[in-house]
Amino acid sequence: MKTLKEYAAIVENRFDALLPELSEGTCEIGGMPWLLASSMRYSLLAGGKRLRPSMLLACVDMLGGDVEAALDIACSVEMIHTYSLIHDDLPGMDNDSMRRGRPTNHVVFGEGQAILAGDGLLNNAFETMLKCGIRYPERALSYLKAINEIACGSGVTGMVAGQVMDLYCEREKTGDEAALKYIQRDKTACMFIYPLRAAGHLCNADEKTLEALTTYGEAFGLLFQATDDLLDVIGDSKAVGKTLGKDAESGKLTCISEYGIEGTRELVKREHARAREAMSLFGDKAAFFNDLVDSMVERTY
Amino acid sequence: MKTLKEYAAIVENRFDALLPELSEGTCEIGGMPWLLASSMRYSLLAGGKRLRPSMLLACVDMLGGDVEAALDIACSVEMIHTYSLIHDDLPGMDNDSMRRGRPTNHVVFGEGQAILAGDGLLNNAFETMLKCGIRYPERALSYLKAINEIACGSGVTGMVAGQVMDLYCEREKTGDEAALKYIQRDKTACMFIYPLRAAGHLCNADEKTLEALTTYGEAFGLLFQATDDLLDVIGDSKAVGKTLGKDAESGKLTCISEYGIEGTRELVKREHARAREAMSLFGDKAAFFNDLVDSMVERTY
Repeated sequence: MKTLKEYAAIVENRFDALLPELSEGTCEIGGMPWLLASSMRYSLLAGGKRLRPSMLLACVDMLGGDVEAALDIACSVEMIHTYSLIHDDLPGMDNDSMRRGRPTNHVVFGEGQAILAGDGLLNNAFETMLKCGIRYPERALSYLKAINEIACGSGVTGMVAGQVMDLYCEREKTGDEAALKYIQRDKTACMFIYPLRAAGHLCNADEKTLEALTTYGEAFGLLFQATDDLLDVIGDSKAVGKTLGKDAESGKLTCISEYGIEGTRELVKREHARAREAMSLFGDKAAFFNDLVDSMVERTY
Repeated sequence: MKTLKEYAAIVENRFDALLPELSEGTCEIGGMPWLLASSMRYSLLAGGKRLRPSMLLACVDMLGGDVEAALDIACSVEMIHTYSLIHDDLPGMDNDSMRRGRPTNHVVFGEGQAILAGDGLLNNAFETMLKCGIRYPERALSYLKAINEIACGSGVTGMVAGQVMDLYCEREKTGDEAALKYIQRDKTACMFIYPLRAAGHLCNADEKTLEALTTYGEAFGLLFQATDDLLDVIGDSKAVGKTLGKDAESGKLTCISEYGIEGTRELVKREHARAREAMSLFGDKAAFFNDLVDSMVERTY
C-alpha cells in the first residue's frame, strides 16, 4: 500500500499519455483538435488532491487486485470530477470565476468551449475506461460492471441528479433536511461510493465487501461535504483556493444552514465513526482508508 | 428487415422504459429527480426521425445479429444525439430558441438545467449501454467494443471535436476546405460511422465488413450534412422545424460557403455513389441502406 501522495502522483503521471498536449493549430482527421486538448488539460491538470482516483487505486491494492489494470479507470474518475467542476462553474450554474486558485475554464476559453471541454472530458472518461477494458479481454465482464458503477455514480441517479436538485433548491429558495440529504449524497458522496464499488468489481469482490465499500464511501463523502460546508464559513480562501462565504450569501442549502456549525461538527464525528466501522471488515489492510478519513476530520483545504 | 418508420417506432417505444416519466416532486434517494426526468424527456421525446438508432438496428438485422440485444445501444445513440442538440442550442453555443418546432430546452428549463439535462443524457447513454452489456455476460467483450465505438463517434476525436472546431471557426471568422472537411466529418458523419461499426461489433463482424460500414457511414454522413446545408438555403422552415438562413447570416463555414449550391449538389451525388458502392458488399440484404441514401438525396426536411 502507498500513501495518498504516491497514488496521486501515479494518476498525475498518467494524464499526459491519456490526454497529450498538442501544438497550436493541430487538427487532423481522426485526431483531437489542439483547442480541445488545451481546454481539457487546463482544468484536468490544475492540481487538486486526486482524492477519488487515489482511493480507487488504494482500494484495488487493499483487495489484492491488479493496480496497473485499474489505473485508467482511476484517471477517468478524475476526468469526470473535472468535467463536473467546469460545468458547475459556468455562468448558467454557479457562475464562479476562480477555481483551484486560477480563473475558471469559461473565463479562459469562453462559455461555449468550456461546455465542450466538459462534454469532452465526460465522454473521454468513458472512452478511456472502455479501451482499458478491451485491453483485458478475459476480464471483459468485470470491466463492464466496474464502468457501470462509475456511470451510476456520475449519472442521473448520482452526481447529475444531485446537481439538478442543488440548482433547483438554490433558484427556488426552497429545500429541507430531506433535500439536503439527497443533494449531498448524490452530488458529493456518489463519486466516492461508486469508484470504490468499481474497484470492488475489478477485484471480483463479494457482496459483503461491496457493502462495506459502499458504507465507507457514503460516510466519507458526507463527511467530506460537511467539512467543505464548514470551510466555506470558517476556512481561509487562499488555502482553499476558491471564493468562500458564497453559500451563506446566496442562501444555499448546506449542513451549516440546516444543522449549524456545532451540529455539522457532530455530523462529521458520526460519519467518521461510521466510516471506520465499515472498514473494520478489512482489518489492518484498511490503514490507508482509516488514516484518510481521520485526516479529513480536521482538514483546512 | 423492417422500414425506417418501423425501426424508429421500436426505438420510440423503448424510451418510456429507459427514462420513465416521474410525477412532480418525486425525489427519492437512489432515484432520479422528477425535474431531470422531465427536462431529458422534453428533448428526447420531441420527435425526430430516429435515423441513427434505426440505422444501427437495421445494420444488426442485415448482419443477422440479435436486434433485441442491440435495442438499448440504439436508444443510447439517440440520447447522445439529443444531448448534443441541447448543448448546441445553448446561449454560449449557437443560441437557438427553436428546435423541432418547439422552444429549445434552455428556453423551457433555464440554462443551468439544460446543461444538466445534456450531461444527464450523455451519462445515461453510457449507463444504459453498460447495463445492457451486463445482461449478456457471455458477450461482454463484444459490448465493450461496441460501446467503445459509440464513445469514439461522440467523443474528443469525433462529435465533440467537430463542435469545438465549428465554434472556433465561427467565432474567429476563419476556416478553409480542410477545416470544413474536419468539422463535417467529426460533427456529423462520426455519429453515423460509429453506431454502424458498433452494430458490426455486436455481430462479431470481420474487418472487411467494418470497413464497408465505415465508408457507408462516412459517405452518408457527409451527404446528410451537405443536404442540411442546402436546406438552410433553399428549404422551408416549417417543414424543417427550425430557424433557417442562419448559416449565411452568421458567415458560417458550410458546403454552400465553400462549394456553392451547385458544387454542393455534386458533392451529394459523389457521396451517394460512394455509399451505394460500399454497400454492394452485402448485395440484396443492403436494400434498407440503399433506399435510405437514395431518399436522402432529395430530402426536404
